[in-house]
Amino acid sequence: MDELTERLLKGLPESAVTVDPEVTASYRHDMAGFCAAGAPAVVVFPSTVEEVQHVLRTATELRVPVVPQGARTGLSGAANAVDGCIVLSLVRMDRILELDVVNRIAVVEPGVVNAELSRAAAEHGLAYPPDPSSWESCTIGGNIGTGAGGLCCVKYGVTSEYVLGLDVVLADGRLLRTGRRTAKGVAGYDLTRLFVGSEGTLGVVVRAVLALRPAPAPQLALVAEFADTDSACAAVCAVSEAGFVPSLMELMDAVSVRAVNRMARMGLPESTQALLLVAFDGPERLRELAEVGELCRSAGATEVVPAEDQAESELLLAARRLALTALDTLGTTMVDDVAVPRSRMAEMMTGVAAIAERCGLTIGMVCHAGDGNTHPIVAFDAADPDQVARAAESFEAIMALGLELGGTITGEHGVGLLKRDWLARELGPVGLELQKQMKGLFDPLGILNPGKLF
Amino acid sequence: MDELTERLLKGLPESAVTVDPEVTASYRHDMAGFCAAGAPAVVVFPSTVEEVQHVLRTATELRVPVVPQGARTGLSGAANAVDGCIVLSLVRMDRILELDVVNRIAVVEPGVVNAELSRAAAEHGLAYPPDPSSWESCTIGGNIGTGAGGLCCVKYGVTSEYVLGLDVVLADGRLLRTGRRTAKGVAGYDLTRLFVGSEGTLGVVVRAVLALRPAPAPQLALVAEFADTDSACAAVCAVSEAGFVPSLMELMDAVSVRAVNRMARMGLPESTQALLLVAFDGPERLRELAEVGELCRSAGATEVVPAEDQAESELLLAARRLALTALDTLGTTMVDDVAVPRSRMAEMMTGVAAIAERCGLTIGMVCHAGDGNTHPIVAFDAADPDQVARAAESFEAIMALGLELGGTITGEHGVGLLKRDWLARELGPVGLELQKQMKGLFDPLGILNPGKLF
Repeated sequence: MDELTERLLKGLPESAVTVDPEVTASYRHDMAGFCAAGAPAVVVFPSTVEEVQHVLRTATELRVPVVPQGARTGLSGAANAVDGCIVLSLVRMDRILELDVVNRIAVVEPGVVNAELSRAAAEHGLAYPPDPSSWESCTIGGNIGTGAGGLCCVKYGVTSEYVLGLDVVLADGRLLRTGRRTAKGVAGYDLTRLFVGSEGTLGVVVRAVLALRPAPAPQLALVAEFADTDSACAAVCAVSEAGFVPSLMELMDAVSVRAVNRMARMGLPESTQALLLVAFDGPERLRELAEVGELCRSAGATEVVPAEDQAESELLLAARRLALTALDTLGTTMVDDVAVPRSRMAEMMTGVAAIAERCGLTIGMVCHAGDGNTHPIVAFDAADPDQVARAAESFEAIMALGLELGGTITGEHGVGLLKRDWLARELGPVGLELQKQMKGLFDPLGILNPGKLF
Repeated sequence: MDELTERLLKGLPESAVTVDPEVTASYRHDMAGFCAAGAPAVVVFPSTVEEVQHVLRTATELRVPVVPQGARTGLSGAANAVDGCIVLSLVRMDRILELDVVNRIAVVEPGVVNAELSRAAAEHGLAYPPDPSSWESCTIGGNIGTGAGGLCCVKYGVTSEYVLGLDVVLADGRLLRTGRRTAKGVAGYDLTRLFVGSEGTLGVVVRAVLALRPAPAPQLALVAEFADTDSACAAVCAVSEAGFVPSLMELMDAVSVRAVNRMARMGLPESTQALLLVAFDGPERLRELAEVGELCRSAGATEVVPAEDQAESELLLAARRLALTALDTLGTTMVDDVAVPRSRMAEMMTGVAAIAERCGLTIGMVCHAGDGNTHPIVAFDAADPDQVARAAESFEAIMALGLELGGTITGEHGVGLLKRDWLARELGPVGLELQKQMKGLFDPLGILNPGKLF
């Protein structure tokens, strides 16, 4: 047994430490494409805060890198192992410690699955809104690490809006408590939000106080078909300009529509170039849907179909949720994540279509249209080096276009390994330097998820 | 002319530099009690980002402290001058640079008055929700510095929820751009929120990208009278437990009620020990008010009076807004700001009453009850050293009680000078050390608003 394993076992049960290379190899990476992954020396599964502290103390003493992991559903390589590292899996810390209805908070461990928390909250008439596509398997710790979003964020906001306080094990094993359990609080610098989206590079979240909301009413949706993406984006702007706050507003381009159409037998005409889904969950949802339907028609929708009822609305949303799976049938996919001001989304869609054309690749697009958060999905043959090169080229072009349109390189997936170079470009030299200094402050030895973000 | 003034004038027009001691003396402090204020060497009024950069560069070169100021309506001494400092007033940077309806953002300079922005947004059917009591005079820069809240935060959240991106002049004069203009974005550490509530200790905000919302419908309110604070707080918990999201939920204790009663001739019975104001602004506000009225009665309300219409609702809210002024007639007042979990608010109110009794002082309480954010208002005779000592004693006791109840020493007013010692207690040694290191990273020479927070 090597020194690292021996030392880890001094504070962890045997069942929590794995060095079997076949097992550790399965913890090498998350779901991102184009990202290198190293070979972990050991994978640990602590069950308590003290065990996490022991792992970090050991890592600090031996100068071994630590890569925190949740469900590894991330799309930027932020959870990818580096050679010789300790993979610190938080999945066994999966308890909901409190669910407080009067104060509308949940206190959870990081390994709690998003959907488990949602279901537990629902039993009390409450909701934890952030709903990334992977919500049935992703963990709250991972959501906090990436600053996850989802479909409902257009009305209810993203992860950082729901994190009130954190317990964080620092690189040297000390325990930091940030934030609060109260609805409001401004005591000192907001370290809580500094950890949200920090991808495990500043510390390891071991407990979170989360805000909950009253569960919304069921959504009612409509679907509008457009003959071009410009009209669909104009409809999105018109809905925003008219002051509506939909609970969901999703846009699919022709490629995604056709892929979903084939898979789900939706029977959409092949002439549909863009499909806009809009839903409302407020008491006036019928009126709102009718008015938004009119706005869509004015913007050029060739067809507007309101769902008959909640069940039909669910079917529409299910079709949207199918998009990624449907596009996966076209080859290896790389899911991108560029957010632009919603007024520039039309240009983003046209620009991505031009990039697809230029690179000779199929690129589908699904967008959280209400937020201007686009997901270009590049399909390619991973066995064909030329296609791989062209996919990489399209990725660069998409990032550049996003920044050019006043957007950000990542709306909700994070930077990880995938977008390191682009982060530097988005932040500029002053921002980059400060962010690196921040990293140095929390992790002077550079053992926390090294190589991610920067 | 001294060297400092001479150097400042190299990058600022004469009209932007004041050394007249009578004028500079009037910039010594904000509206906090119990806080020391020094004598500024000079007060500057830059109009451009470049001028702010020049001020900070000069300050760095000459090692002169800089105290940024907005409208100085703060209640924690965060804007108080220190001896020999440059007071950096941002009030001349008061332009709304953009108001973008489709993307629902405003880009503003820091000296824009909160109410000006609200009015400009209203012209486009939009709203900037955070509404501190001083909204008619306080500036957005000050709101960002303190992380300001207000009456509507129970439904719409506080300042940090609305700041998307910032331009910040750093201590050495460099310009940092943080955040984004998009609805979502997770590129790198969230430096934007780190600046919100940082009280000018990390940098000087010179431009902000703010999120706006569609303007809500007018509020309809009810007022419920209670014979004791416990019942009123029970009603607040019942409203929360039943899943309501009021647009306002304010609680006034007997002292505040009587003070307002006298001033506004509301004709409330002297038996009223607590007055709860609840308002809704959604399409179902009539039903919601009726149901909340029932909950109040079940919790023991002696009287529940729904407003007849919007005008009467406005009168009720105006009465609440009068509370501070009305309490001011009782002597010098010190407005405190402790937030507790709303389930503990009853204990907070009872506890504060006991402290008032023990210290032999009048302490009124108004609470943003939906948020558990209490404002004990200590009235005393500032000319009587014994009363001053007892007021200070009550302050300490109120802080201690807030922490004991799982609360925070400041819900929305900030730490400033007033609560420095208590910040250390709330954060604990690990948190305090990290926060100080953070300060050191941004301001290695310690020239930015020294002595505030820590």
